[in-house]
Amino acid sequence: MSTSSDFAHERDFPRRVRVVEVGPRDGLQSEAGFVQTRDKIALIDDLAAAGIREFEATSFVSPRAVPQMRDAAEVIAGVDRSATNGQANALRLTALVPNPRGATAAAGAGVDAMVVFLSASESHNRKNVNRSREESLRGFLEVASIAREAGIAVQGAIATAFGCPFEGEVPVGAIVDIAKGYRQLGITHVTLGDTTGMATPPLVAERCRALRAEVPGIEIALHFHNTRGIGLANVYAGLHEGIDIFESAIAGLGGCPFAPGATGNIATEDLVYLLEECGIETGIDLEQVSRMARRMEEIIGRTLPGQVSKAGPRLKLSQLDDVATACG
Amino acid sequence: MSTSSDFAHERDFPRRVRVVEVGPRDGLQSEAGFVQTRDKIALIDDLAAAGIREFEATSFVSPRAVPQMRDAAEVIAGVDRSATNGQANALRLTALVPNPRGATAAAGAGVDAMVVFLSASESHNRKNVNRSREESLRGFLEVASIAREAGIAVQGAIATAFGCPFEGEVPVGAIVDIAKGYRQLGITHVTLGDTTGMATPPLVAERCRALRAEVPGIEIALHFHNTRGIGLANVYAGLHEGIDIFESAIAGLGGCPFAPGATGNIATEDLVYLLEECGIETGIDLEQVSRMARRMEEIIGRTLPGQVSKAGPRLKLSQLDDVATACG
Repeated sequence: MSTSSDFAHERDFPRRVRVVEVGPRDGLQSEAGFVQTRDKIALIDDLAAAGIREFEATSFVSPRAVPQMRDAAEVIAGVDRSATNGQANALRLTALVPNPRGATAAAGAGVDAMVVFLSASESHNRKNVNRSREESLRGFLEVASIAREAGIAVQGAIATAFGCPFEGEVPVGAIVDIAKGYRQLGITHVTLGDTTGMATPPLVAERCRALRAEVPGIEIALHFHNTRGIGLANVYAGLHEGIDIFESAIAGLGGCPFAPGATGNIATEDLVYLLEECGIETGIDLEQVSRMARRMEEIIGRTLPGQVSKAGPRLKLSQLDDVATACG
Repeated sequence: MSTSSDFAHERDFPRRVRVVEVGPRDGLQSEAGFVQTRDKIALIDDLAAAGIREFEATSFVSPRAVPQMRDAAEVIAGVDRSATNGQANALRLTALVPNPRGATAAAGAGVDAMVVFLSASESHNRKNVNRSREESLRGFLEVASIAREAGIAVQGAIATAFGCPFEGEVPVGAIVDIAKGYRQLGITHVTLGDTTGMATPPLVAERCRALRAEVPGIEIALHFHNTRGIGLANVYAGLHEGIDIFESAIAGLGGCPFAPGATGNIATEDLVYLLEECGIETGIDLEQVSRMARRMEEIIGRTLPGQVSKAGPRLKLSQLDDVATACG
């Protein structure tokens, strides 16, 4: 039997992938009930103990607009960084920052990177932050300067990067233009966000290739939602493009106001399972992450979409008398 | 923008895939409540109207062992074949047949193909049908002869083809040996069944390649369960191997006694969505299939795992005032 690392090699997959946990921010953001600050901190601490090193930890937005994120500074302050502080594999806590005010707060709280974001489609950007894409980009100039002064990195996210719920298809040129705009601000890390689950393998390939060709040296992260069930197939398509940074949320937290019954972000434990089975290292302990997925269901008080935490490890063996009949 | 059919071409994906609906059998088999015969027939009729041409329609097993399948002959008799009868794209109704008695009943009912099955692992086969794999294969000789006399094709399925819940890993040699055994019985179509959701992309590649190398001319179908969330990533890996027959169940019906909280078969509507978006023809109308997925939830009386039916088509547009806030 060929090993799974031969498999990754044959396919030119990356040997190692950075899994960025966005549950504390994108996952929880749309939860109606406030999740206690201590639960958010414990979530990050426990996932860090499981080997996750990068977190989109919170969002420095108006507490009126997003009450769930009103404890942003406390969350950043509360995470225990002692285990890896100063080491090469130190924790990296990022936070969404919509404007200079948020940037100042994020710098004060000590985030490791600020994430600015705008939508690839004009109408979604207006709906989301009440300004044009042009205005958004201009506003990031001051954010970037605040971050620079504080010695903090800035990353750029592009929402609706694979389609817009108001406009439909989003031309690849819009993505490239925004990435160039980011680049001019000194931002070299771009996350393509599949905000409403419209990504498909051909779009993943097209967008990754266009960015690489037209914005050389840009670092690409992919952020998929499983709204239409194909989130991990999109990851697989991304691996074929050599992408090695993927964002996910524990247990598949998150949702989308445009698709009420649908699932949210791809589940971290299912992503880690897929990657490890394909022979790609993540440094993450699947059992520990699965345990946290189950814990998250207790905190949220309902069943969440992640699968591996329910089915258990692939080689978990049953006893012959565990079940009345086998599967036909 | 490159078209999705360029995408399929560049990747050497098949241009057309046969989607086999197994909801009426594998999907319903483990449902505790009896689904009315008229509902089963309507399910097949409506999915046929949506373009699905192949169904694993039922199972000619002991009504005591599997009460849900006690109406096998009525289901086969009830399906309306008038629309395509005698045409090249006629409906194809297959049925599981465990023994000569089932074969006689299936022949009498007028199935288009009989499906014999055994497990790749000895203990699962014993648990499932109370005999050794060797005994299973020998028993199929008589089934094959009954089918031949009736002019009916026989297909072979291999359960636990990617792993066994009792034994763990299943060596690829076991799959090849069974396929060779099938071949000696004149069976040239083999379905690899991921009975308890243990398939991974490397195993998919390994098993498809071994079968092609060692049992030349064999037709391979893949049957995945989404137990650990990566069912459609496995489909994607199968497409890379050139596989063009996939089995799925409407709405993701089905389950597995070894993973109580986990999902069942991959959902037909999500599979069709993935294939069509990758530029691969299925001949199936996604909206009609999604409607049937929702109808299935009504019949079963609970939410089922399929996603596309909940989220709606990819380009379903929302109005700007449909939601209070956009996704961040």
